[in-house]
Amino acid sequence: MINFYPGPSKIYSEVPQYAQEAFELGILERNHRSEQGMELIGSCILELKRHLEIPSDYSVYFVSSATEAWEICAQSLLVEPTFVYNGAFGKKWMEYSKGILPDSHSLSFEPNEFPMFPTHGDVCVVANETSNGTHIPCIPQEREGLIVMDVVSSLGGRAYEMSKVDVWIASVQKCFGLPSGMGLLILSPKARMRAKEKGERLHYNSVLFLEENFSKHQTPYTPNLLGIYLLKRVLEGLEGKKIIHSRLEQRAQQLYNELREYYAPLIENPDLRSTTVLVFKCDHPRELSHFLEKNGVLIGKGYGEWKENTFRIANFPAIPDLHYKELSRLLSIFVKT
Amino acid sequence: MINFYPGPSKIYSEVPQYAQEAFELGILERNHRSEQGMELIGSCILELKRHLEIPSDYSVYFVSSATEAWEICAQSLLVEPTFVYNGAFGKKWMEYSKGILPDSHSLSFEPNEFPMFPTHGDVCVVANETSNGTHIPCIPQEREGLIVMDVVSSLGGRAYEMSKVDVWIASVQKCFGLPSGMGLLILSPKARMRAKEKGERLHYNSVLFLEENFSKHQTPYTPNLLGIYLLKRVLEGLEGKKIIHSRLEQRAQQLYNELREYYAPLIENPDLRSTTVLVFKCDHPRELSHFLEKNGVLIGKGYGEWKENTFRIANFPAIPDLHYKELSRLLSIFVKT
Repeated sequence: MINFYPGPSKIYSEVPQYAQEAFELGILERNHRSEQGMELIGSCILELKRHLEIPSDYSVYFVSSATEAWEICAQSLLVEPTFVYNGAFGKKWMEYSKGILPDSHSLSFEPNEFPMFPTHGDVCVVANETSNGTHIPCIPQEREGLIVMDVVSSLGGRAYEMSKVDVWIASVQKCFGLPSGMGLLILSPKARMRAKEKGERLHYNSVLFLEENFSKHQTPYTPNLLGIYLLKRVLEGLEGKKIIHSRLEQRAQQLYNELREYYAPLIENPDLRSTTVLVFKCDHPRELSHFLEKNGVLIGKGYGEWKENTFRIANFPAIPDLHYKELSRLLSIFVKT
Repeated sequence: MINFYPGPSKIYSEVPQYAQEAFELGILERNHRSEQGMELIGSCILELKRHLEIPSDYSVYFVSSATEAWEICAQSLLVEPTFVYNGAFGKKWMEYSKGILPDSHSLSFEPNEFPMFPTHGDVCVVANETSNGTHIPCIPQEREGLIVMDVVSSLGGRAYEMSKVDVWIASVQKCFGLPSGMGLLILSPKARMRAKEKGERLHYNSVLFLEENFSKHQTPYTPNLLGIYLLKRVLEGLEGKKIIHSRLEQRAQQLYNELREYYAPLIENPDLRSTTVLVFKCDHPRELSHFLEKNGVLIGKGYGEWKENTFRIANFPAIPDLHYKELSRLLSIFVKT
């Protein structure tokens, strides 16, 4: 099956072999606080920092999902945050956080509009909105508050300047081409300072505990060591982040061009358009999806308010170019029928 | 390496093959809310219910760790609970919960003593204390409050009567012979009713959300689908829970007998002694552990206050009988040197 579902999606073809390695090495039978366990956690953090060019004084935590990372931010970091969003995932994040932080603010904007950022305080942005294919090109300027970016469906596919943001939230089952089951939470020294000021120690996943543990390459819970091993091995084999970024950008552009004849992008302004989740207008997404699935190709249907009039195509690094050729071929057949 | 570490520990030898299957089937590339994803979640729940003989009206949730399950209980279920414990894990559970529920009570007891249970209210018990090898044979009698049992290092190895307890907390990296990265939370209808009364909806892992989602074979976060697949496949191949229970009981008895010559069990009363985590008194655990490791055998060192005068041997279903023979052989050599 050719898979363009925007996550969980295509897994790198080397990953099954990496999984066998992990079993053979016996690392999965070792305690996570053993020398071997800590060595694995430490080396995976190093690989992630190397690949993404994360400043050395940033912290990396492996959590169970990006949703858990949302909750950790609300509990341990944020103070009266403003959520800037134009789609379903940004809204969901705001709603979750509002339960924990009732004084959260919303600043929603329309698709195809540029967002406005509040001038002060903590700001939370879904940089790559998986529901409608918006990518926010600018980030809020330097501020005394924290900048928190959800890059669940773009980290690993876009070459972000990691030092510009205080908190990055991501997961491994999209642009890292891995099975689901792990989230990434990346913190600047300023974010760690905020955790100290806030002093929240009520939860097993409080940032203060995460920091105490991860600084020793430990975790305050039994971690998904197989997931950590697979991430480490995938990272070791990746091209540089700028090369991946350019390749995806070109492929996205080509697909937007090729498909324009039949399906216009939902986000018209190229500066606001995602290069990793491509969303196209379509008045018959079910029929299209059905036709493609019959021909061995899985796409993402529309999401939320765009459910009935769009479809979504993942443009993730693990998906080979050939698969996009097949998609174009099938689409050109479909539109003629 | 022969591995008696009390978790993460020996993985069933079939698991690497099951992992390959999961990759080949493509299930890990499917969205967890796709038909295939929901079918997997549903069939794993069914297998667990079949194997453990869980009443059909109980709910099963897959979470990321038993530590997360502790937190979920404190947030969504418990009211002024009493924690009954005699070891490090029970104490840790109480301390975590006290952060969220300051009116939690402690009822600690000494190793080799029978515990007393409070006559009313919610009671939380570590049934199998991994730090000192205590197993609590009796459970609190029927009550209006909830009975919550942590069986992290015994579920899958002991044939519990599942209907006697309202909340079971377990994980997969001990008696289920799987890689770490998943916790199990099993709830009775009475526990679900409590969640409704408590009405807690502040967290992404609130029981009310878990129930809404899992009743549709969904999850309120992106789950560890590989972990779920592996659990399902292991469960399909297991002998009945009573057969496993008897086999471990016999093996534990044999080991307690064989080793008695050199090392006495920390828990003297057989009625209070774990059959899945065996803890022996020893005044030189470091030397012993070092000798065994040199000979390809990993054991658990002492834990917490028993760090310097005990060692721990996992008696988990995935460990073959032959490995215990080798352990006995090496121990008889060690004590003569």
